[in-house]
Amino acid sequence: MPNDVVRRGRLTGERTGEMMHFLSSMTADRCIADADILVDIAHVLMLHKQQIISQETAKSILSALLEFFDNGIPESAFDDRYEDIHAGIESLLIGITGENIGGRLHAGRSRNDEVVTCMRMKIRDDIIRQLSILCRLRETLIAVASEHENSFMPGFTHFQHAQPTTLAHHLLSYEQAFCRDYERLVSCFTRVNRSPLGAGAFASTSYPISREYTAELLGFDGLLVNTMDAVASRDFALEALAALSLMMVNVSRLCEELILWSSGFIRFVSLDDAFCSTSSIMPQKKNPDTAEIMRAKTASVIGAHMAALATIKGLPMSYNRDLQELTPAVWRGIRDAKHSTRILVDMLSTAAFDAARMQEEAGKGYATATDLADMLVRRYDLPFRTAHTIVGRAVTKGALDLRTLDSAAEETAGISFSQMGLTGEQIQEALDVSVSISNKRATGSPSPLCIRIDLEERKKQLEQDRNRLMETISRLSRSRERLIADARGLTG
Amino acid sequence: MPNDVVRRGRLTGERTGEMMHFLSSMTADRCIADADILVDIAHVLMLHKQQIISQETAKSILSALLEFFDNGIPESAFDDRYEDIHAGIESLLIGITGENIGGRLHAGRSRNDEVVTCMRMKIRDDIIRQLSILCRLRETLIAVASEHENSFMPGFTHFQHAQPTTLAHHLLSYEQAFCRDYERLVSCFTRVNRSPLGAGAFASTSYPISREYTAELLGFDGLLVNTMDAVASRDFALEALAALSLMMVNVSRLCEELILWSSGFIRFVSLDDAFCSTSSIMPQKKNPDTAEIMRAKTASVIGAHMAALATIKGLPMSYNRDLQELTPAVWRGIRDAKHSTRILVDMLSTAAFDAARMQEEAGKGYATATDLADMLVRRYDLPFRTAHTIVGRAVTKGALDLRTLDSAAEETAGISFSQMGLTGEQIQEALDVSVSISNKRATGSPSPLCIRIDLEERKKQLEQDRNRLMETISRLSRSRERLIADARGLTG
Amino acid sequence: MPNDVVRRGRLTGERTGEMMHFLSSMTADRCIADADILVDIAHVLMLHKQQIISQETAKSILSALLEFFDNGIPESAFDDRYEDIHAGIESLLIGITGENIGGRLHAGRSRNDEVVTCMRMKIRDDIIRQLSILCRLRETLIAVASEHENSFMPGFTHFQHAQPTTLAHHLLSYEQAFCRDYERLVSCFTRVNRSPLGAGAFASTSYPISREYTAELLGFDGLLVNTMDAVASRDFALEALAALSLMMVNVSRLCEELILWSSGFIRFVSLDDAFCSTSSIMPQKKNPDTAEIMRAKTASVIGAHMAALATIKGLPMSYNRDLQELTPAVWRGIRDAKHSTRILVDMLSTAAFDAARMQEEAGKGYATATDLADMLVRRYDLPFRTAHTIVGRAVTKGALDLRTLDSAAEETAGISFSQMGLTGEQIQEALDVSVSISNKRATGSPSPLCIRIDLEERKKQLEQDRNRLMETISRLSRSRERLIADARGLTG
Amino acid sequence: MPNDVVRRGRLTGERTGEMMHFLSSMTADRCIADADILVDIAHVLMLHKQQIISQETAKSILSALLEFFDNGIPESAFDDRYEDIHAGIESLLIGITGENIGGRLHAGRSRNDEVVTCMRMKIRDDIIRQLSILCRLRETLIAVASEHENSFMPGFTHFQHAQPTTLAHHLLSYEQAFCRDYERLVSCFTRVNRSPLGAGAFASTSYPISREYTAELLGFDGLLVNTMDAVASRDFALEALAALSLMMVNVSRLCEELILWSSGFIRFVSLDDAFCSTSSIMPQKKNPDTAEIMRAKTASVIGAHMAALATIKGLPMSYNRDLQELTPAVWRGIRDAKHSTRILVDMLSTAAFDAARMQEEAGKGYATATDLADMLVRRYDLPFRTAHTIVGRAVTKGALDLRTLDSAAEETAGISFSQMGLTGEQIQEALDVSVSISNKRATGSPSPLCIRIDLEERKKQLEQDRNRLMETISRLSRSRERLIADARGLTG
Repeated sequence: MPNDVVRRGRLTGERTGEMMHFLSSMTADRCIADADILVDIAHVLMLHKQQIISQETAKSILSALLEFFDNGIPESAFDDRYEDIHAGIESLLIGITGENIGGRLHAGRSRNDEVVTCMRMKIRDDIIRQLSILCRLRETLIAVASEHENSFMPGFTHFQHAQPTTLAHHLLSYEQAFCRDYERLVSCFTRVNRSPLGAGAFASTSYPISREYTAELLGFDGLLVNTMDAVASRDFALEALAALSLMMVNVSRLCEELILWSSGFIRFVSLDDAFCSTSSIMPQKKNPDTAEIMRAKTASVIGAHMAALATIKGLPMSYNRDLQELTPAVWRGIRDAKHSTRILVDMLSTAAFDAARMQEEAGKGYATATDLADMLVRRYDLPFRTAHTIVGRAVTKGALDLRTLDSAAEETAGISFSQMGLTGEQIQEALDVSVSISNKRATGSPSPLCIRIDLEERKKQLEQDRNRLMETISRLSRSRERLIADARGLTG
Repeated sequence: MPNDVVRRGRLTGERTGEMMHFLSSMTADRCIADADILVDIAHVLMLHKQQIISQETAKSILSALLEFFDNGIPESAFDDRYEDIHAGIESLLIGITGENIGGRLHAGRSRNDEVVTCMRMKIRDDIIRQLSILCRLRETLIAVASEHENSFMPGFTHFQHAQPTTLAHHLLSYEQAFCRDYERLVSCFTRVNRSPLGAGAFASTSYPISREYTAELLGFDGLLVNTMDAVASRDFALEALAALSLMMVNVSRLCEELILWSSGFIRFVSLDDAFCSTSSIMPQKKNPDTAEIMRAKTASVIGAHMAALATIKGLPMSYNRDLQELTPAVWRGIRDAKHSTRILVDMLSTAAFDAARMQEEAGKGYATATDLADMLVRRYDLPFRTAHTIVGRAVTKGALDLRTLDSAAEETAGISFSQMGLTGEQIQEALDVSVSISNKRATGSPSPLCIRIDLEERKKQLEQDRNRLMETISRLSRSRERLIADARGLTG
Repeated sequence: MPNDVVRRGRLTGERTGEMMHFLSSMTADRCIADADILVDIAHVLMLHKQQIISQETAKSILSALLEFFDNGIPESAFDDRYEDIHAGIESLLIGITGENIGGRLHAGRSRNDEVVTCMRMKIRDDIIRQLSILCRLRETLIAVASEHENSFMPGFTHFQHAQPTTLAHHLLSYEQAFCRDYERLVSCFTRVNRSPLGAGAFASTSYPISREYTAELLGFDGLLVNTMDAVASRDFALEALAALSLMMVNVSRLCEELILWSSGFIRFVSLDDAFCSTSSIMPQKKNPDTAEIMRAKTASVIGAHMAALATIKGLPMSYNRDLQELTPAVWRGIRDAKHSTRILVDMLSTAAFDAARMQEEAGKGYATATDLADMLVRRYDLPFRTAHTIVGRAVTKGALDLRTLDSAAEETAGISFSQMGLTGEQIQEALDVSVSISNKRATGSPSPLCIRIDLEERKKQLEQDRNRLMETISRLSRSRERLIADARGLTG
Repeated sequence: MPNDVVRRGRLTGERTGEMMHFLSSMTADRCIADADILVDIAHVLMLHKQQIISQETAKSILSALLEFFDNGIPESAFDDRYEDIHAGIESLLIGITGENIGGRLHAGRSRNDEVVTCMRMKIRDDIIRQLSILCRLRETLIAVASEHENSFMPGFTHFQHAQPTTLAHHLLSYEQAFCRDYERLVSCFTRVNRSPLGAGAFASTSYPISREYTAELLGFDGLLVNTMDAVASRDFALEALAALSLMMVNVSRLCEELILWSSGFIRFVSLDDAFCSTSSIMPQKKNPDTAEIMRAKTASVIGAHMAALATIKGLPMSYNRDLQELTPAVWRGIRDAKHSTRILVDMLSTAAFDAARMQEEAGKGYATATDLADMLVRRYDLPFRTAHTIVGRAVTKGALDLRTLDSAAEETAGISFSQMGLTGEQIQEALDVSVSISNKRATGSPSPLCIRIDLEERKKQLEQDRNRLMETISRLSRSRERLIADARGLTG
């Protein structure tokens, strides 16, 4: 195996295997190896265009790189003896083409700008993949909600039965939350997809390079202009982790509900066997393990985010090796988020929601007591707070009927509803779950009327988001094809 | 003092002072008390417009609220005996106007939507204030950079002298980073400034309220449509903390450098006495305490962010009292970030950078060895990697001169530069700091030529950002004035 | 007001109020002001004993300090114009006694050793207070458990009914966990209660001080020997936060269960009204708010721990002003933990557990299926895995009776239990909840027999812990009394 | 490959590869696979001793397990199709011995107690390994300190030259800190090394198992008595992460100093090439990368700790699948801490400290101004604060000589040192670095006299810690040998 070509001039001495492994970023670098080949190709095309290397040199290097691109990077490039994949590939290339050719690859750049270019390309692809999964997740939530416009259920506050709502309303609240997660990732993308290439170690280079040309070849939407900022900043990665942490918090809330709803007490949902496990000792068990793991993955992503923040805090300009340790946390956070949401789509779309069981619970716990108070306000022009107090007191008497209301009204306000003509039927109607729900008509409310409007809005929004995403995917895919075509053209 | 009007119906029993304090959010609620008055006013105007309360009732309530607005909320509203400021104000209002009037205020809403409306109004103001400070910070960085286009200094990687750059280049890297922080907060603002009001406990209400009208009155840019999402989600606050954490990480890096540069070893900067402290025992000390505290505040903001994420993780729908505990962390994070950046502006603008001392260090540590390698590449058509190896080996020989280069070239590549005609003068020129810097001409490079272009760009960008911010501020200020005018009109 | 006597020599210039507030640690210093007086007294006694100051000087300073001790520190000592309480008190003292007396107080020490001595005294008191609360919490858990040795309930895994257990067994699991939290805090105490005093700025002093004497006067169990370590290390505070974070995680789990068990679905517990709140809009609501806030406080303490770790990470020796920003996080974490656990004691001891409701659920969800499998293993010498598979399959058939068992056995193992003589009665007995529980006889199992043994053990352990705690409290209290008596003796 | 024997009865349906991978803990389980074999062996020995399985069955199972022990677990046991290694090994065992034999292994236990037993065995080994590394680290610090009792250097506060000290004093401060880390891990060990085995799913079992016997066989120091606590608690793992986080914070501080001291400005230390890297572009660079990565690893361990805390927060009793996701964070934190400290030992012991360069800086920055103030106090009976003010003012005049002191004394105290007889020689002597250091004689001070005493103490302490550690290692190693011998005895 060729030596690490970067160390050989300046440093001496043998390093132990543990040391090499400790310093090497190879494990994490597998995530950016493919991007690195593209960056190398773009750099060589630029060096040639700017007449920094000859056509012959460019052809030879590009041939080797295209070979890696077509057939994969040789495993030996990932040896721990190299500090990173960049040193690995350059060393291999020199092994193949000779130093007089391969030794010219690294002119006008540094690993500092190279690695962060690769990171940005990888994260931009990861964001796009995550956006695509979020589209499917939102689509699934909308689809399940569409089937449950009239599935009454208890809404909860403080995990207590609070007021009746519908499953559609409940699920759409998640769709809105995931839509904001979507927006945040789109916003993050604009800061990720800018090219640091050509920044060199941080001071750029005296070679007449064109940063604009490599940026265009690699599908970036512009430059990170200041070259010190370009190599030293990692806020694009921290921002991605921040956005994913928030998204996972939303995932954890939905999973918490799926776990609770799967319990023998609640039974609102039955998750497909594929997402459950049993016990090694208790033969009857069917456990919502997948949802539990997702809930825990949220903590993992948060932990990765914290590690990343604490890594960068207090580092002086410009590049410090600490930045290398950042990337495993980033890849881990991205991967956990991706797997969790992808599997969540399948878990939701195969979940069996039990509308009858939900309806059974919808009116429990005096869930429509607010409607009763509101009715009393309307019918007898009571102040809301007075009605609230009376109904609250009636509940402490164990029922909501004419007798308890009269007694409570007497105690707290010195009035009598029977004398004012209130009947048991009127009370019953006010307490009726379906009446309660259909009366909620302000924008975004649970009444089927409102839900139908919202569903249309949400579908339109999703359609729009999806179309824009497709455009971005096409644009990136076209630049990638053009890059390879240009390289083949030159070698051809 | 009036009782807590919310508890009296349903709950019995005395609570200890400790319990009341533990449950109460009063301390943190001071941050939203002013917003709460505005929300109350808007709610009453809407109840009147929608004919849910009579004109007389509206007048009486608004008179009391405007009194609070004009002269401040009475201190008794903040008593720990109330669970929160909403209960405090409503209880006071009932005390003033009687229950038949004041008891009608809370019709058609809940504390759940009320508190989150207040939070959003407070955070939107905080974001605007932070954006304004960031403008001043960026302006300061640009101003100081403008004075130091030609102030050569060593650039660092791994805190080692690496390549020469200029102070302007160095400072502009921070300006770019803070500009992205600015973008993130602007993006966050669009998700913060949406109205949850009218969502009630989560299921909205059967009163014929208009959510659109209160949203407009309060200067929101639209609704959080789904009413469960409106009360249950806190990602807007988490996102603000995430953005501020990233911003503070940038602050901490700048402060780390100011601390290092203040040391007796480096002496690149002398901070104004106002930002320093001395020792109680060592009379000679002048310590960069303010920068140290800012560095530590970064950890505090990150900690607040961690607390916030862990608070929300795994909470089921919709409102849970855990959300109350979120807010102190949010206010603390916002406040620490605000103070730190505001003081940073002053610390930077009064800092004395020592250009002569910087220049003295600019060429040390073989900082222009890369330029020498580049020159060898250009002059003798060497592969970059070969030149890199030769120069690296020469450094291990203790100097960069013709003798060491020849020796290194012989050892590593079997060539001789003297025989190829290289002279000591040529080496010296290649190693010259000012030549090195002026040769860096790719976009964003440290050469004065590039810096001048960047400075123009950055000033333009800042101007644009500032104009947009002014528009937002005006818009919010106008809606606030209109709201108060409408209320006065009705009471008048 | 006297000036800050520390700054006046070395530093010039006015500072803005915001700056003074930003640099000042006054708010957090209120927590250590009382300790600071004791430290001052001990320091003066030592200076006198070592003949560094005269008896007259010692008398005058001690008189003023005892005045502060007896009647409280004047409010003016807490002005933000002083950087910290140490500067405040010294400045006041000089104002009272004149510089020729008061100006001798600070000989042979620095604020660096002074502040960390105060912190250690405060944290040691906080730990003792927390240990005392933990004793009461453990006592409460043991007491409630004692009443519920025979209260059957479903045990859960994955929040699914799993196997029957008793409430006593369930609660004792928390007692054991809190006992480990107790151990951790006791262990932490040994590292907290060591004296850094006399370390000066970090290099100690050339005055002939006696560090041993002040350590003894202040009740420390020994010295932090190395004087640089003494002022620079904060691991004692981080360790306290770490221990409290773990403790709060245990609190959060118990609170989660109290919240779930309070729900309309489960109804295992009814919390006292004092610990609940209602809704401002839904009059029927009784919410377990206190438990929710405790759950959230856990996140706050974790956040404080994160802030503290990130503050100290990467700081060089010895003192850095960052350490000041650590303390508010520490006080906050300690306070949140203390309040939460103290209130938890009361919430638990007033909670009404519904044994009948628990019993009703104890056998649901095939909770004794494992016992059935075990019976089949014993009766027919089946391998456990075979019996587990058969019973698991029978559950999927919707019941556990002879018919489903036969059918499942046929399918999965090709055998027939009816033919082997199994009867419905035998199945019923195996599935009986009380039989199941009383059969669990390994150490620590839920059977009442085992629980009674455990209860005795736990009471003994608690008694022992409490006695040791009392000894520590007495010891500290005695040294404090002696310190004051010595000071009064000298001033006498 | 045999099927997963746990799922087959209760659950149906195919799972995708992604799902299987998501649910499976196999990657992390590699860390506990060896422990699992030992646990299986101990469990079988106990089942036999308690006559729950026959001798023949025990022999057959033990033979297979010993085969795994001797020759390694077959790779097929780690297939993702198994949920975990326990299912993998049991499935393999049934494949080898037939269900009638292997199907009896799992009687009287559950994966819940099995996995946590394995975790505790793994973590106890990890702690021992870490303790052993800490001994070597402390030994190295003591050894290097021993060589530098008289190596003067500047001590720093706020990264400013503060007072002179010695390298020995500086390094011993780290030794003390690492000694506390050592204590914390020893304390943690006592809570880790307790056996949860026999707790079953959480309710133990109706088989007549002996928990005491398996605990003894596996080298545990006792039981986790309550069986619900035994399976549900993870504070032992959180505590280990907490202790390692604190330890790594200390590592990060030392690394920060090594990085700073390696810089061209300071040059106090030259790290061996093996621990450095160069630049791919700047041929002269020698960067302290290893120290930077360690500094960053600190953030990684903190992040793992945060992930772990957030995972467990709010989980109800008893086992939840979230606990599985905890373990990768634990293994990662342990591994990062172990590698970092092991390599730190080598980096320190090969580092070349430049005593001459340190001495050159020792007196800079008026580092002995405090000594001058102290001398003035002693000689003229000035109050310390007066002397402090005078010297501080003199420093602002640019020098510490008779002229500036006189001028400062006149300004601030209206006195004249010349008139009082002070000479320039006396000033010079007071400012002498070696005099300053040798005058620091309080316990733990930097004077060589004190350092020699401390070195002896530290060596004794280390010797004692090491002996105790050796005893623990022997004890565990003996129980392991006995376990295997017993198993071989039964099969033989």
